[in-house]
Amino acid sequence: MAQTLGQIAQAIRADLHGDPSCIITGVAPISGAGDGQLTFLANRRYARLLETTRAAAVILTAADLESCPVPALVAADPYVAYVKAVGLLHPEPGFIPGIHPRAAVSASASVDPRAYVGANAVIGEHSRVAAGVFIGPGCAIGEDVTVGADSKLVANVTLCRAVTVGERVILHPGSIIGADGFGLVNDGGTWLKIPQLGRVVLGNDVEIGANTTIDRGALEDTVIEEGVKIDNLVQIGHNTRVGAHTAIAGGAVIAGSVHIGRRCMIGGATAISGHIEIADDVIITGMSGVPNSIRESGTYSGGVPTLDNHTWRRNVARMKHLDELARKVQRLEAALEEQRHPRTDIGTKSK
Amino acid sequence: MAQTLGQIAQAIRADLHGDPSCIITGVAPISGAGDGQLTFLANRRYARLLETTRAAAVILTAADLESCPVPALVAADPYVAYVKAVGLLHPEPGFIPGIHPRAAVSASASVDPRAYVGANAVIGEHSRVAAGVFIGPGCAIGEDVTVGADSKLVANVTLCRAVTVGERVILHPGSIIGADGFGLVNDGGTWLKIPQLGRVVLGNDVEIGANTTIDRGALEDTVIEEGVKIDNLVQIGHNTRVGAHTAIAGGAVIAGSVHIGRRCMIGGATAISGHIEIADDVIITGMSGVPNSIRESGTYSGGVPTLDNHTWRRNVARMKHLDELARKVQRLEAALEEQRHPRTDIGTKSK
Amino acid sequence: MAQTLGQIAQAIRADLHGDPSCIITGVAPISGAGDGQLTFLANRRYARLLETTRAAAVILTAADLESCPVPALVAADPYVAYVKAVGLLHPEPGFIPGIHPRAAVSASASVDPRAYVGANAVIGEHSRVAAGVFIGPGCAIGEDVTVGADSKLVANVTLCRAVTVGERVILHPGSIIGADGFGLVNDGGTWLKIPQLGRVVLGNDVEIGANTTIDRGALEDTVIEEGVKIDNLVQIGHNTRVGAHTAIAGGAVIAGSVHIGRRCMIGGATAISGHIEIADDVIITGMSGVPNSIRESGTYSGGVPTLDNHTWRRNVARMKHLDELARKVQRLEAALEEQRHPRTDIGTKSK
Repeated sequence: MAQTLGQIAQAIRADLHGDPSCIITGVAPISGAGDGQLTFLANRRYARLLETTRAAAVILTAADLESCPVPALVAADPYVAYVKAVGLLHPEPGFIPGIHPRAAVSASASVDPRAYVGANAVIGEHSRVAAGVFIGPGCAIGEDVTVGADSKLVANVTLCRAVTVGERVILHPGSIIGADGFGLVNDGGTWLKIPQLGRVVLGNDVEIGANTTIDRGALEDTVIEEGVKIDNLVQIGHNTRVGAHTAIAGGAVIAGSVHIGRRCMIGGATAISGHIEIADDVIITGMSGVPNSIRESGTYSGGVPTLDNHTWRRNVARMKHLDELARKVQRLEAALEEQRHPRTDIGTKSK
Repeated sequence: MAQTLGQIAQAIRADLHGDPSCIITGVAPISGAGDGQLTFLANRRYARLLETTRAAAVILTAADLESCPVPALVAADPYVAYVKAVGLLHPEPGFIPGIHPRAAVSASASVDPRAYVGANAVIGEHSRVAAGVFIGPGCAIGEDVTVGADSKLVANVTLCRAVTVGERVILHPGSIIGADGFGLVNDGGTWLKIPQLGRVVLGNDVEIGANTTIDRGALEDTVIEEGVKIDNLVQIGHNTRVGAHTAIAGGAVIAGSVHIGRRCMIGGATAISGHIEIADDVIITGMSGVPNSIRESGTYSGGVPTLDNHTWRRNVARMKHLDELARKVQRLEAALEEQRHPRTDIGTKSK
Repeated sequence: MAQTLGQIAQAIRADLHGDPSCIITGVAPISGAGDGQLTFLANRRYARLLETTRAAAVILTAADLESCPVPALVAADPYVAYVKAVGLLHPEPGFIPGIHPRAAVSASASVDPRAYVGANAVIGEHSRVAAGVFIGPGCAIGEDVTVGADSKLVANVTLCRAVTVGERVILHPGSIIGADGFGLVNDGGTWLKIPQLGRVVLGNDVEIGANTTIDRGALEDTVIEEGVKIDNLVQIGHNTRVGAHTAIAGGAVIAGSVHIGRRCMIGGATAISGHIEIADDVIITGMSGVPNSIRESGTYSGGVPTLDNHTWRRNVARMKHLDELARKVQRLEAALEEQRHPRTDIGTKSK
């Protein structure tokens, strides 16, 4: 959706240096941008590209304004301003509210007339869908579910019984919210299922990736606080709480009863054991295994980087005997110490 | 569903000490339980909480009976007895049998009149659904599938061709049973697909988590024996067999042609290589990588726990050269040994 | 589907030694094959089984022909020839083209009359489905999607807006192609979503496993080149490119903006960090973590194999202090060196 530079400047709260009537039709990287395209300069390393840019306009900081040969939008954080401009130029496609004739909405469910329910979507008894909600094709919503205003279930999403979804939440395809937690107790050699009675509560502005699963609590609720962003194929166990504005990358496996703080960043393919706590503002890099609580903010890492197979095999052979190696070093230290400072009783013997 | 203490005692086979007509409406932890609530004491560490509990009744062992100020239910394993009581107080919601008008059941399929088939569920040719089965919305069942009595497909479950599901099986949303195994052979630089002709057989009382995938066998079947419990986002490759009453936690990746024994416990995010065997009664802790067979019962572990990023980086730099470090230690040992016990021929030379 | 030996020999381009009218009805391993069954001998280790085989015919190399007591099919690669014969004997079940009355096809979508659209499948505006395509039950296809000839979406597959699927592509149940990439920028403590404007492009002959997710690009496309085979529960991030004929095993997590070369093999449960490159013909063994680019073909590995829990615990305790251990060894080396070659100034003092 084309915008004038003036409209963009106002929307992203940038200072415009140039013609406000200039038409912007899209975005591109600084090296490739041309007619009608907006770009940005956030990293001074690319400053030399500014001089030769053919972009219609550049979002940059005040420090780069002087070197800019084309219209400029000055912003404190050019990348954030650029992302806002992208949203303006490429808005999410809208929808015409209504219930598709192939949707199956229970008689006791309530769907706001400003919401959309797609083909082959199913809405269970006593569930409530607020205004502006988009429920895509094939979504299955159980009983007693609440979906807050302006949330979007893209397609084939499953919300089990009594799940509560906040406002402006995005649920990508295949995400499963509120399946039973993995609660079992061993009863003489067979597993007895522990009834899972809690709910899943998703706060406002949460985004959940494709095929991610978040289990309902056993007695209490599993809670994903506001602004949390979760990537694809992530598992969140029962009774876990994820603090506001935390981001979790793809393939992470979070066990049950974990308390993750606010503003954390959990790397992809990381696993977090059950019943532990992660403090606020913790960064865990990808493919780490976290067996114990992390009580202070900071960056944490685990795992062993990949090597060529030959070196790795030799190292692994040593790793299996690492404790022995360490003991050997201790004995060497002791032996050397004795050589340098022989014990007195030995000295007297040599008389 | 409220029950009298007498009803509960009988159902969970506990000895009641107190008024059998007392009404129980729910459960709560021992510290928070109040009017009408049942709780339990399984761990002697919490015994002091017993004295001040306001619960309506407590499930405990005979050893704690004397200290209990309220009605008590004596059981050999109070936690197991408690879980049974929870199931009694919060039974799974029932269903009215029948086929939803929006379901698509093939003409040659047979659905027992005591089963339920939900909206937008699809049942393929020649498939059979037994009595008491619940097939939730959006489930896709292929041809020649059998679903045994009292099993539950919660929603959006896919059963591919010829899958056989036992009785009282629970399949959580998004689980995919019987997709083709990953069978390929390299034919001069491109991959030739190996036809996957086997089935998946799920035994009685199996439970499969949300978005878990279990592939059909290549020639023979993939078999999940009775009582196996599998968590969310687990991958089970073709021709693998999982022994009875084994439990597998979330995010585990089990390759093809693996034979896992009975009563094993596989931790979350663990990976098991193809064509190996795991004995009965093996526990593998979370995030382990298992490249070789484990032939004896016991507890096994792998992986490197997470550290602060600074320490981890220094350790990783060393880990890359672990074999060199071990060789260095060997040379030091030899050098020190020579200093202490010079070789005889050197001694004779010094004459 | 039974075939004569002559038909099979012609189809798999093998030299037949025996009666071409012999009827073959199925396949079996060499040790168990009997009447009407075809088998193969690819590994000389099993050559002794050839002498006593009761198979109707054996596919083998010219070197083994003499020892074969039954009709033989001589092929350069007996296993490849066998897999082709299996495909001939067990062809994929066909389908009768048409649109199921319970499918929901948008008015502006075009479906070739030789394609099939199953029950409760949904096809969005302006999408095009080519001849010979099978779209199974419950699939949700968004707007502006293209599906090339003879492709198969087994069931419950989701293709988001503008995804492009090549010819002869197989998409297994629960796979999600084209969900938004995990693109976020931190805007003063909250996450701002970066609009994901690119597409996913799947080349010809691609196969995608159950519940695997492939995200759309941010500005440019995510590309899976021709002949790529991806197993179940794999995550592919936005803007990643996977080179032709690469195979990726189950549970692998590939971040965004990764360029993987041609003919690579990525092991199961392996994680690859974002913004790196993997050269052509690279093999990465299972459960490796790849943080940096791999610029040369070869085999690479990571991870620490599982040990008994007791040994592992002791080793892990040492691993946490590996850098200290290495420094200790350096000090020992220096001390020993000094003992053997004392510095001169000390020597002069002793005069």
